[in-house]
Amino acid sequence: MTSNISAQAHWRPVPFHQVALADGFWKRRLETLNSVTLRACLDQCESTGRIANFAKAGGSAEGEHKGMYYDDSDVYKVLEGAAYSLMTVRDPALEAEIDRIVDLIASAQETDGYLSTYYTLQAPQSKWTDMEKHEMYNGGHLIEAAVAYFEATGKRKLLDVACRLVDHYGDLFGPDKRHWVEGHEEIELALVKLYRTTGEERYLKLSQWLLEERGRGHGHGAIWEKPDWGPAYCQDDVPVREIRKVTGHAVRAMYLYAAMADIVRETGESTYVDALHNVWAHTVERNMYVTGGIGPSQHNEGFTHDYDLPNESAYCETCAALALAFWNQRMNALFGDAKYADIVERVMYNGALSGISLSGDKFFYVNPLASQGEHHRVEWFHTSCCPTNLVRFLPSIGGYAYALTDRGLALNQFVGGQVAFRLPDGIRVDVDTRTGYPWDGGVRVEVKPEHSHSFPILLRIPGWCRSFRLKLNGEPVLEERLTVERGYLVLDRCWETGDCIEYTMEMAVVTVHSRPEVEANQGRFAVQRGPIVYCLEQEDNPSFTYDAFTLRPDLQLACEYCPDTLGGVTVLRGRDPEGLPATFIPYYSWDNRRPGWMQVWINEKETGAIYTS
Amino acid sequence: MTSNISAQAHWRPVPFHQVALADGFWKRRLETLNSVTLRACLDQCESTGRIANFAKAGGSAEGEHKGMYYDDSDVYKVLEGAAYSLMTVRDPALEAEIDRIVDLIASAQETDGYLSTYYTLQAPQSKWTDMEKHEMYNGGHLIEAAVAYFEATGKRKLLDVACRLVDHYGDLFGPDKRHWVEGHEEIELALVKLYRTTGEERYLKLSQWLLEERGRGHGHGAIWEKPDWGPAYCQDDVPVREIRKVTGHAVRAMYLYAAMADIVRETGESTYVDALHNVWAHTVERNMYVTGGIGPSQHNEGFTHDYDLPNESAYCETCAALALAFWNQRMNALFGDAKYADIVERVMYNGALSGISLSGDKFFYVNPLASQGEHHRVEWFHTSCCPTNLVRFLPSIGGYAYALTDRGLALNQFVGGQVAFRLPDGIRVDVDTRTGYPWDGGVRVEVKPEHSHSFPILLRIPGWCRSFRLKLNGEPVLEERLTVERGYLVLDRCWETGDCIEYTMEMAVVTVHSRPEVEANQGRFAVQRGPIVYCLEQEDNPSFTYDAFTLRPDLQLACEYCPDTLGGVTVLRGRDPEGLPATFIPYYSWDNRRPGWMQVWINEKETGAIYTS
Repeated sequence: MTSNISAQAHWRPVPFHQVALADGFWKRRLETLNSVTLRACLDQCESTGRIANFAKAGGSAEGEHKGMYYDDSDVYKVLEGAAYSLMTVRDPALEAEIDRIVDLIASAQETDGYLSTYYTLQAPQSKWTDMEKHEMYNGGHLIEAAVAYFEATGKRKLLDVACRLVDHYGDLFGPDKRHWVEGHEEIELALVKLYRTTGEERYLKLSQWLLEERGRGHGHGAIWEKPDWGPAYCQDDVPVREIRKVTGHAVRAMYLYAAMADIVRETGESTYVDALHNVWAHTVERNMYVTGGIGPSQHNEGFTHDYDLPNESAYCETCAALALAFWNQRMNALFGDAKYADIVERVMYNGALSGISLSGDKFFYVNPLASQGEHHRVEWFHTSCCPTNLVRFLPSIGGYAYALTDRGLALNQFVGGQVAFRLPDGIRVDVDTRTGYPWDGGVRVEVKPEHSHSFPILLRIPGWCRSFRLKLNGEPVLEERLTVERGYLVLDRCWETGDCIEYTMEMAVVTVHSRPEVEANQGRFAVQRGPIVYCLEQEDNPSFTYDAFTLRPDLQLACEYCPDTLGGVTVLRGRDPEGLPATFIPYYSWDNRRPGWMQVWINEKETGAIYTS
Repeated sequence: MTSNISAQAHWRPVPFHQVALADGFWKRRLETLNSVTLRACLDQCESTGRIANFAKAGGSAEGEHKGMYYDDSDVYKVLEGAAYSLMTVRDPALEAEIDRIVDLIASAQETDGYLSTYYTLQAPQSKWTDMEKHEMYNGGHLIEAAVAYFEATGKRKLLDVACRLVDHYGDLFGPDKRHWVEGHEEIELALVKLYRTTGEERYLKLSQWLLEERGRGHGHGAIWEKPDWGPAYCQDDVPVREIRKVTGHAVRAMYLYAAMADIVRETGESTYVDALHNVWAHTVERNMYVTGGIGPSQHNEGFTHDYDLPNESAYCETCAALALAFWNQRMNALFGDAKYADIVERVMYNGALSGISLSGDKFFYVNPLASQGEHHRVEWFHTSCCPTNLVRFLPSIGGYAYALTDRGLALNQFVGGQVAFRLPDGIRVDVDTRTGYPWDGGVRVEVKPEHSHSFPILLRIPGWCRSFRLKLNGEPVLEERLTVERGYLVLDRCWETGDCIEYTMEMAVVTVHSRPEVEANQGRFAVQRGPIVYCLEQEDNPSFTYDAFTLRPDLQLACEYCPDTLGGVTVLRGRDPEGLPATFIPYYSWDNRRPGWMQVWINEKETGAIYTS
């Protein structure tokens, strides 16, 4: 049963390399990413032996495998990020460095196609004995890197490695062959990418076969035996089409749902649709932090029970927030609903961006919403999935901005820059977007079709936005003449070159409350302005002691854009009931100055007011 | 025990006749008031025999008293309004007409000073036998009219009538004389006005004596015997300094508290202060509608139990909303806190303004927050206190805008126009305010002291306003350099002629919820933007049936100022979950087109959202 709201839209995100960012907010972050973060992560992969593991497995270096069985994936993710970087600025030195690493990876592939340096070096006789050991997870990240590097450079070498690896999977697993439930999802969505790049349907079929393996008792390995964890930890408790609730390890769950959305998209598999809608609602309505963070518990890096969202002990792995964005990007394309892009936005400006320092060389794995002062970013982790996930997410940020709909263009995220694309009917359109987002709700969009042409432009109305104004070529557009569909303003008209949309979202300071079921936030409020969730940090608030103060939920806050503060942020300044100053900064920007406490959810001064807004 | 928050400020409102309105919103309303409403009310007082009652009592006409025992007060209130009108535009024809009525009033005064046409004509032997019969209530309104007419014209005749009447009260009542508890308060605050105009302390003393009579068993009359009503109905249940909760008839209660505030102001009577703070909180935190309406019940024209705020059967007498403003204006001057001006604002743009049609000739006595379509304004009422209260409230609206503080000026309400005043130290200052309020949160204030001079200007930060910006002579003022005191931004500096304040209050569309104790609003929300409470009216919403639809509380609303709609209003347009259009208009402006249903509180579509703002 597919209701109207579930009707599939089959949009196509405009790839980030067609989007020339000219955006004060993101451009600067990406410059740092390219100049600092990517280099730092490559160096870490080198110095921690992650790259050397490939040389060792390939026989060009001596020694044992170093690190964890999933460390190959970090190298792949940095390669993926480097490929994205090369799509924007083709840097020959970087490309030569990647080529060298690609050669090492290729050398590490066994003759039958097998590739996972841990098993090759450490336990070649134990391959495929423990489904938790990330063999296909590594393979999935190899695929994503290979596709990215092929698209960036046209070089097939890594893609061929990936195809050989996947063909090897196909030799071993599948209908009438061995069962396999990959303990950490990733391979499933990667196989769909590989299918899209190569056109080989067997990759798509293998992806869906892997999904269908789950929840049928085929899984086994260390994780399945762990008393608290079991099959639900890696989403092996029910067949995927029967999923209704989010469970277990947060990143794994998100990657699974992302793959399910991909399969619906590519195969029309309608039996997954209800599962996707149900688990989406269960995730975002009961198990998501206001920052877009998910997975409250360190114990299982994942979910516990509904509305369990502690602040200080919030795990909120950076990767989990990113994975939530990956999934929601796919849901948006699949169903054409702005509510999914809202989640992407919540993640990209809050719970994911907090994962990286302004300097670009320090990272959070864990993103709590309160800290007494002991939580700080570091340069690398023993398990370093988060830095390397940021390295591939951030350069592709422009890819979240636009999507091609059936006939036109949707603006999903508001980033300044030029985008060039062809409509489904072949007409080329250039669009130039200017905005002070996320500090200002004004967006100016200049539309330049190659000739006059009728098509719809959809503008997302963010979930946080209660009111907006629209002008077309300087003339206000009345609401009666607007169509709103699935959270988008739809401007369906004949566009002429130079037509200009001025879209002004009212970006008010608001205080936010949780549902009362969220115990941790009872009697507390948070502050948000536009997409940005704010926090108080000790550095700006010497009058207060951690959690030992109250503010009125109707406090007034002066908005001030401070270009020299924290890389340029809008700061909110107000007073406590005693008149002591309270200064809010964006949550993502905390822990970039002297160490100190931080709080997102503030104890609320009971005002007795009969009406609250 | 007087806490810091109770510290008295003793501000002095700048009288409306020093404020030259040049304001799109109010100027138009006042033009209609002067050209239509005042005339209509004078004509009604004539045609219903209210004016003739004075001629009959004075012997210049024949016949019985017509109407109710409190009808004299309507004539006084129209005279008061006419006097205010004359202060702005001295219209000789109107003044001649008022002079004629004043002569009739004076002729109706008995030789001992007694004046109340009902008793003189109908039951001269029964004077002062039933404390409910509004004898001093009529006298109070006579005083207010007399003071106004004296201030407007310098003519003492009506003032002399008033003084003779009050001296007559003093002959009969007071310490060691007869007891009196006036059933409908009004005389008490009027006596303070008379004291301020004449300087006669006995008027002040009589006022306080009358307050002190209450709650001591001295009251008697029809109303005291009524089973459901009793002493609490007219606030005769406890001595005034022991009042903690609002009770009984809403207008009576508000006039009482207004008088108590006056007495604190004039005498320093500290034992009333806690009562005022307590009853204020009890009124606005548990017993006030979002429109500023008060008194839910028709039965007693007043209060029932806490949080009893039904919408369709809301009584919300226009006079009660006005009286709430009168009281809060006094509280603001007494304590210098913006929260009282917030209440004045809530009343003036909502629950009071709804009392009069845009055409100026039709009135609501009852102001419900929901109607199935049968509630409409009419030209006059048998008991017509509400139209005549509006006639005196509206022309004095400019008097709510500014107050002189101990050293400077406070901007309480944002209305465009020029104001000229002298600071307490004698320096003359002119201020020119420009604003698009209440549709726009920008206020530009040009300050012109006669010479450079240091004094504070206080800008109210409205309770609805979460954020604001401030510029001084074009330069942004940082929040750190701002002082906020009791809800005001305090700009204490040396002002030069031509200094310009640009104060921009972020005027966002917000959805408002009641405390859960308000049963009528459970599962409902209202929409507010700036000071304006919105409603849905049938005329704009043909897709909906009364109360049989739901909207999402996070719905998006396009703001559109429509100069030709309802006298110029900002309309909010959105969609229901099915995409059907929903159009909100200001509550005050409903029932000015074809009859139809109206709702302020809208059934909320449960979204399941974990975070709400």
